[in-house]
Amino acid sequence: MTITALARRIRDGELSPREAVVDALARIERGDGALNAFISVRADEALAEAEALAGREVRGPLHGVPVAIKDVIDVAGAPTTAASKILVDNIASADATVVARLRAAGAVVVGKLNTHEFAWGATTTSPHFGPARNPWDTERICGGSSGGSGAAVAAGLVPGALGTDTAGSVRIPACLCGVTGVRPSLGRVPNRGVVPVSWTFDAVGPLARTAEDCAILLEVIAGGDPADPTSVGAPVPRYTELLAGGIGGLRVGVVSHLFEGAIDPRVAATVESAVSELAALGATVERVDARVLRETEVVQQLIMLPEAAAAHLPWLRTRLADYGADVRGRLLAGLLLPGTAVVTGQRARRRLYGEALQLLRGIDLLVAPEMPIVAPRIGEDLVEAGGSTLPYRLALMPYNSPWSCLGLPVVSVPCGFVDGLPVGMALIGRRLDEATALRTAHTFQQATDWHGRSPPEAA
Amino acid sequence: MTITALARRIRDGELSPREAVVDALARIERGDGALNAFISVRADEALAEAEALAGREVRGPLHGVPVAIKDVIDVAGAPTTAASKILVDNIASADATVVARLRAAGAVVVGKLNTHEFAWGATTTSPHFGPARNPWDTERICGGSSGGSGAAVAAGLVPGALGTDTAGSVRIPACLCGVTGVRPSLGRVPNRGVVPVSWTFDAVGPLARTAEDCAILLEVIAGGDPADPTSVGAPVPRYTELLAGGIGGLRVGVVSHLFEGAIDPRVAATVESAVSELAALGATVERVDARVLRETEVVQQLIMLPEAAAAHLPWLRTRLADYGADVRGRLLAGLLLPGTAVVTGQRARRRLYGEALQLLRGIDLLVAPEMPIVAPRIGEDLVEAGGSTLPYRLALMPYNSPWSCLGLPVVSVPCGFVDGLPVGMALIGRRLDEATALRTAHTFQQATDWHGRSPPEAA
Repeated sequence: MTITALARRIRDGELSPREAVVDALARIERGDGALNAFISVRADEALAEAEALAGREVRGPLHGVPVAIKDVIDVAGAPTTAASKILVDNIASADATVVARLRAAGAVVVGKLNTHEFAWGATTTSPHFGPARNPWDTERICGGSSGGSGAAVAAGLVPGALGTDTAGSVRIPACLCGVTGVRPSLGRVPNRGVVPVSWTFDAVGPLARTAEDCAILLEVIAGGDPADPTSVGAPVPRYTELLAGGIGGLRVGVVSHLFEGAIDPRVAATVESAVSELAALGATVERVDARVLRETEVVQQLIMLPEAAAAHLPWLRTRLADYGADVRGRLLAGLLLPGTAVVTGQRARRRLYGEALQLLRGIDLLVAPEMPIVAPRIGEDLVEAGGSTLPYRLALMPYNSPWSCLGLPVVSVPCGFVDGLPVGMALIGRRLDEATALRTAHTFQQATDWHGRSPPEAA
Repeated sequence: MTITALARRIRDGELSPREAVVDALARIERGDGALNAFISVRADEALAEAEALAGREVRGPLHGVPVAIKDVIDVAGAPTTAASKILVDNIASADATVVARLRAAGAVVVGKLNTHEFAWGATTTSPHFGPARNPWDTERICGGSSGGSGAAVAAGLVPGALGTDTAGSVRIPACLCGVTGVRPSLGRVPNRGVVPVSWTFDAVGPLARTAEDCAILLEVIAGGDPADPTSVGAPVPRYTELLAGGIGGLRVGVVSHLFEGAIDPRVAATVESAVSELAALGATVERVDARVLRETEVVQQLIMLPEAAAAHLPWLRTRLADYGADVRGRLLAGLLLPGTAVVTGQRARRRLYGEALQLLRGIDLLVAPEMPIVAPRIGEDLVEAGGSTLPYRLALMPYNSPWSCLGLPVVSVPCGFVDGLPVGMALIGRRLDEATALRTAHTFQQATDWHGRSPPEAA
């Protein structure tokens, strides 16, 4: 059931908050053994909180709705492990701003979701907590780092979840698990209470079955926070009220180079069909040459590596052996970068933002494949894409780095299947314009049913 | 004569552009031997340009007004040496944006002004071009790095000049030479065609006799430039139309810790008197505890050093021996800083900006001494200030780093004398609000005559 439908039933008295939470806990109990989506479940607390909501005035748009939270985001009293050994005993003393806002809107947090160690990787294969498994094929990855969030929503364990996205970590699992995910504009959602990867890239975002559900979650969690100097004070649009109206006349730019080269041609063709559907729904579609943005792949590394290393500095000094090999390797690389390289990267980032503004002249929204491949097998480092064999990490960078680096919002929308595995389309908005991407995703979902399919491992 | 008066006389036909330029060239000829304010004079070109303006429609507010430009800013066809050996033969192929805007407003560039090597130092004692000398005492420094600009305006060689300010380089020479100077908000004035020091700190600004003259110059040079991604597209206020109206009810915050400690008590008392004058003019004055901003002194170094080193990287590889000792030393320090330190500094910079916004709640303008001392003697590294003996560079940092680091505009205004040498007051505005600081400076100058005094070396 969607958040929209569930919240309506609770508001209408057809279902109590307790029943909704009991149902979610039963699904987790039944389904999570095969998926390993959850790191911890807070059954007793969630039931108590649901009971406390019963019979009360409706608190907000999520009244009684069970949600789950990526385990890098603090929920007061619950462990925040970041799927790491270092934080395995770390109990959060307060809610992250986004969690406090969800609760204030009536949501009930049922548990914490698996992630790549410290949210820094695109596979969700923590050496400490084991891999999250894809509900469409449990031998395959969920993507990452918000892989637990993708799996839990896809399998119907919860109707919505929060993830975090530094370099693709909401969009990639949303795509590979066949759900809808939003990376908001940089600064749109506050990061207070979230274990950082890279403070000029990190963005908390929702994953859910539909764009409409993502709009509800985003509307609740977005907005400036004085405690987070990276958050933006700009007014938050009423996303849920901006979904209707269709996309007649919308000017859509197709990022043409991302449909060629190192991409499975069946994936490219699937996303091309979705673009044709947007045109059929009234959008004006034109090709855009955005190859200049490939530079963002290097630029992002130049900034992200030292930012992550700076955030981890105390643990690098005292707990080096407790990191898994891949995250440790990246953190050590971050220690080695000279300041001159970092500021050169930052200057390029600013210039590229200017170039992107030029590309976006006369364009309301960009569209591209979210990923060039479907979910690879767990443990598979090299992937095939359009005749090339390349590391999974490198394959996904051209599809994700540009929008992270420029701080633009992205909605990843299910748009078809290849080999029975989900394919996703990325809708990329102008800065602080999540609303247009969400409206486009919603319009697409009203006309198609890719987002409604259920995986074999649905609970 | 002020720019205001000179431009009016030219517009009224009482003086031709040629006469104005001939007069400036004569003053430079007469006065610059003792001052070494100019690195190059473009007499023939300036005369030809002035003649071309004669009898024509008035081009703009600076029609026929001679100005001089710090020698890090490109003037097409003239050398841009940056007072360095490395650029001694560098001829600019195009005007910097600010110079093109001055010319479009009718100004005539008569020459290029001395600076600290590569504009990176607060003394204007280039090892290649010799020290600029203070018109109030030629054994003393002008401050820097826009020392030639300060000296040329103070001595009346030109009515106005452009400088650049990374860490105080407009404000300090304006103060020590007894003229008015403006460091605009970060991004307000474009840097295209300016030799960079540190691209997230550099700001081009005017020096002139009065706030009114500075307003004219700033209004001409300000405004976004698509060629400079660090410039801000926000609309430029009509500064000249916002000077009137007085400061009745203006809420002025006195940065109290900058009046104590390592400051010459006579300088502190002089600025306190000026603050009393602001109160007498109608401002509401309150003390502000801004000690948290002392952290900007370290933060600025963490960012400025690698940014400068990155800008100089090609020359550091090939021309290391051609730098003077102090700039070379700072550039090498910039090469050594790890990226983790830089991003830590940047994060602190963002946080401190948030803290400053808190301090500025209910405050329209901050006021502080621009410098804790009067101009030291040339070659004097250690200075006395309030009982402490400390390096000149360290003495000035608490007075200049906070506003550079936060990107806030500062107007430095002459406000008295100690030992016959000028003292300046810093008026610090909210971000992008140069207008309030300029109006305050103008109101102060309408009521006082510190800005009208002439130094012994006036030409």
